[in-house]
Amino acid sequence: MSSPFFKNYGPFRFSEVIKFLNLNIKNLNEDKEIEDIKDLFSSTENDISFFHSKKYKDFANITKASFCLTTETLKNELPEKCRPIIVDNVLVSTSKITSLFYPDAITDEFDKTVKIINETKFNDTVNYGKNVLIGKNVSIGSNCKIGHNTIIEKNVIIGDNCCIGSNNIIRNTYIKNNVKILDNCVIGKHGFGFFPAKDNNLRYPHIGKVIIEDNCEIGCGSTIDRGSMSNTVIGKNTYLDNQIHIAHNVKIGKNSIIAGQVGIAGSSVLGENVKIGGQAGISGHLKIGNNVEIGGGSGVIKDVPDNSKVMGYPAKNFRNFLKENK
Amino acid sequence: MSSPFFKNYGPFRFSEVIKFLNLNIKNLNEDKEIEDIKDLFSSTENDISFFHSKKYKDFANITKASFCLTTETLKNELPEKCRPIIVDNVLVSTSKITSLFYPDAITDEFDKTVKIINETKFNDTVNYGKNVLIGKNVSIGSNCKIGHNTIIEKNVIIGDNCCIGSNNIIRNTYIKNNVKILDNCVIGKHGFGFFPAKDNNLRYPHIGKVIIEDNCEIGCGSTIDRGSMSNTVIGKNTYLDNQIHIAHNVKIGKNSIIAGQVGIAGSSVLGENVKIGGQAGISGHLKIGNNVEIGGGSGVIKDVPDNSKVMGYPAKNFRNFLKENK
Amino acid sequence: MSSPFFKNYGPFRFSEVIKFLNLNIKNLNEDKEIEDIKDLFSSTENDISFFHSKKYKDFANITKASFCLTTETLKNELPEKCRPIIVDNVLVSTSKITSLFYPDAITDEFDKTVKIINETKFNDTVNYGKNVLIGKNVSIGSNCKIGHNTIIEKNVIIGDNCCIGSNNIIRNTYIKNNVKILDNCVIGKHGFGFFPAKDNNLRYPHIGKVIIEDNCEIGCGSTIDRGSMSNTVIGKNTYLDNQIHIAHNVKIGKNSIIAGQVGIAGSSVLGENVKIGGQAGISGHLKIGNNVEIGGGSGVIKDVPDNSKVMGYPAKNFRNFLKENK
Repeated sequence: MSSPFFKNYGPFRFSEVIKFLNLNIKNLNEDKEIEDIKDLFSSTENDISFFHSKKYKDFANITKASFCLTTETLKNELPEKCRPIIVDNVLVSTSKITSLFYPDAITDEFDKTVKIINETKFNDTVNYGKNVLIGKNVSIGSNCKIGHNTIIEKNVIIGDNCCIGSNNIIRNTYIKNNVKILDNCVIGKHGFGFFPAKDNNLRYPHIGKVIIEDNCEIGCGSTIDRGSMSNTVIGKNTYLDNQIHIAHNVKIGKNSIIAGQVGIAGSSVLGENVKIGGQAGISGHLKIGNNVEIGGGSGVIKDVPDNSKVMGYPAKNFRNFLKENK
Repeated sequence: MSSPFFKNYGPFRFSEVIKFLNLNIKNLNEDKEIEDIKDLFSSTENDISFFHSKKYKDFANITKASFCLTTETLKNELPEKCRPIIVDNVLVSTSKITSLFYPDAITDEFDKTVKIINETKFNDTVNYGKNVLIGKNVSIGSNCKIGHNTIIEKNVIIGDNCCIGSNNIIRNTYIKNNVKILDNCVIGKHGFGFFPAKDNNLRYPHIGKVIIEDNCEIGCGSTIDRGSMSNTVIGKNTYLDNQIHIAHNVKIGKNSIIAGQVGIAGSSVLGENVKIGGQAGISGHLKIGNNVEIGGGSGVIKDVPDNSKVMGYPAKNFRNFLKENK
Repeated sequence: MSSPFFKNYGPFRFSEVIKFLNLNIKNLNEDKEIEDIKDLFSSTENDISFFHSKKYKDFANITKASFCLTTETLKNELPEKCRPIIVDNVLVSTSKITSLFYPDAITDEFDKTVKIINETKFNDTVNYGKNVLIGKNVSIGSNCKIGHNTIIEKNVIIGDNCCIGSNNIIRNTYIKNNVKILDNCVIGKHGFGFFPAKDNNLRYPHIGKVIIEDNCEIGCGSTIDRGSMSNTVIGKNTYLDNQIHIAHNVKIGKNSIIAGQVGIAGSSVLGENVKIGGQAGISGHLKIGNNVEIGGGSGVIKDVPDNSKVMGYPAKNFRNFLKENK
């Protein structure tokens, strides 16, 4: 995934990658250059990919990657042109190789490149408050407002007619048109993703971004983490209330309404026209259909099909919940 | 509701109002001036009101408003002196008329009028930190402290002996005496109120304010939204812990204690001496009585009478909850 | 508990302490000097202690304190050398005496001593952003980064290789090595502890601190309160996600993982290797064992033994919860 946000330090030769993983592989053949690390579906023949679960078998079968980190058990699902690299833990090795290509995507250090907005080209084009800081290579469209003390870090892209409030921190984010971000939000920091290890966890890189589509509104004190290998996406005209937490890789469809203090765990995908009541929580890696309504306070721990209305903890059919709890 | 916070752009003639709604009304009679839009109870003969639900029948019967947005079904509840204006959707029309009178109450743009406090009259009377910003027409009593980076936007009123921490954003708010607001709060932004519409929701105006009575304390990272047509009120000596969300129009009685991460949805009204445990949630438009105790983690979805103790999701009698969950 | 964070205004003579409590005690004997107020276990013969519940009987039996605030019923548990001071409400009197010794520990006013970091000795040793404020007597190790608008208040101690993000407020805190604090956190403010009183609650002092051990990470928008008479502790290599609330006196063991929006109420003690899913809540004064897993959204209202896996509200055995909720 080529990214405007993180510098790709590649290409690296296959032999370098092998050495970085402390692997001992005999037959190197030609020592091909590898340009990037991508998921099975996005990879080209210049890339290395990773395959760690049968769930992704169909993508494995057709990947164009020339190399793939995987296990002895899974390797036979890869096409002939893709060379399997057998490792003990696919995700840990993927993390290591990603950090080789994108070393800047592991940490979330503050952006040293920022300048006070008066000293940038946006002095004339943006309607801004006090102490606004802008990083390198930021792009801001016409008719935008940015409130006091807000920090727009390097490479962030903001469309037209956007209204960003005060005390926000925005990084690794692509904000489209007519978006409103209220106050005190942190958008685009890395997700809560790491490999637990005794006394010193190993963080994996987050090279994805946050994409906020047209006409969205993001409430005060919300946090939206950027994706790890894919993006976090807030669909068109979706409104988020205050104190909402959206974890990495989450995708929310358009025209959705999410009330205060809701939390959505990593990699869950929500359809369009989804309505979520206050304080509800959605576990990670779930699929929530279109036109779903989730009652306030619910805890959703399995997929929810289109057009359903659920409530409870664990969330179940809305009528059943109310009947059982009369 | 005349407001120190939002400019009323009225009066408007009845014919202008009608035109703004794209209505075609034949008999205009005398083209009376309308000064304001108010609820049924508060309206005077110079005002227009709105009546959208049978629940408000008693107020409709005695309203003094000269005009009222309503439906064919409800119009007969209005007194003879009040002229019904029949519309398809009373709330959408109310929103439109409110935005005609109060166009500034729709958005929550940062306050361009702020100055660094050293350059204001408060330089001598307030004990302040670094980078404190103060808007136009702000009033601050004696013996107040305001911490670093805090923004007090235009028209905010603060009483005596108040202690406002750092990194707060306060707007459209009336803070009385001896109030403590800790750090990182956003108080007085508009509520999460809008009419959902495909691809572009319609925000309705919030012309209410937040009122924080004497001796209150508001914990770190809390958000308190201002009211739409009424006010959001925190009663005397009520203490809020950290990360609490109070939605628009909520009213909390005096001497209440609300623990961390509690959320109260729009328009709910709480009595005095209410105690709420951490992470509990209260749905919108509910009535919680005096001396009520709500256990931590509860989800309250119906009214709670005086002197009750409830727990669970949905919240029920405390003893029953514990008995059923042994 | 001698504290680098709060000035002890003692010693006070026994007669002064008695007078401060409005007590009338006849036999003063020698009017001994009292140096500090401490818990039963930590007290030396120069200290006054407090004993309010049978739970602490074993500590009462062996306390070295020369004086102890207690009740008529409990006084006989104290050793002969410890003079009981009988009061109506032990905790209220303890609070009063603590405020006599530590008057600065009641309020959480912003730190007036801060300077912009460029004007401090850290200009050369810290990698810092814009508008960073540093209080008196702060200590910062080598190779640290501090992001924009962050406020490090007086007496805070930060170890080596720490990475503090932007918009944080840190006070009364000891941060060890290799710690990462992301953005918008408030760490070290007083807890939500006070004695409710009609129309004007009585705050009690919080003389504890927050200790964050090596290799921890604290997510965006989190709040960690300092202890009242003990400390709040985050164990080595423990990771907290975004929007987490840790109340006063909580202790979390090492290698724990706590997902977004979790709340832990006052004085609960968690073991090592604890994993907590998003939005879970833990009531106050509980003991959670080692290697415990708590499912997302759970509400824990009683102790959890080592090596257990619980889920639900109230939290119960994980398998039972899933079986009952099929």
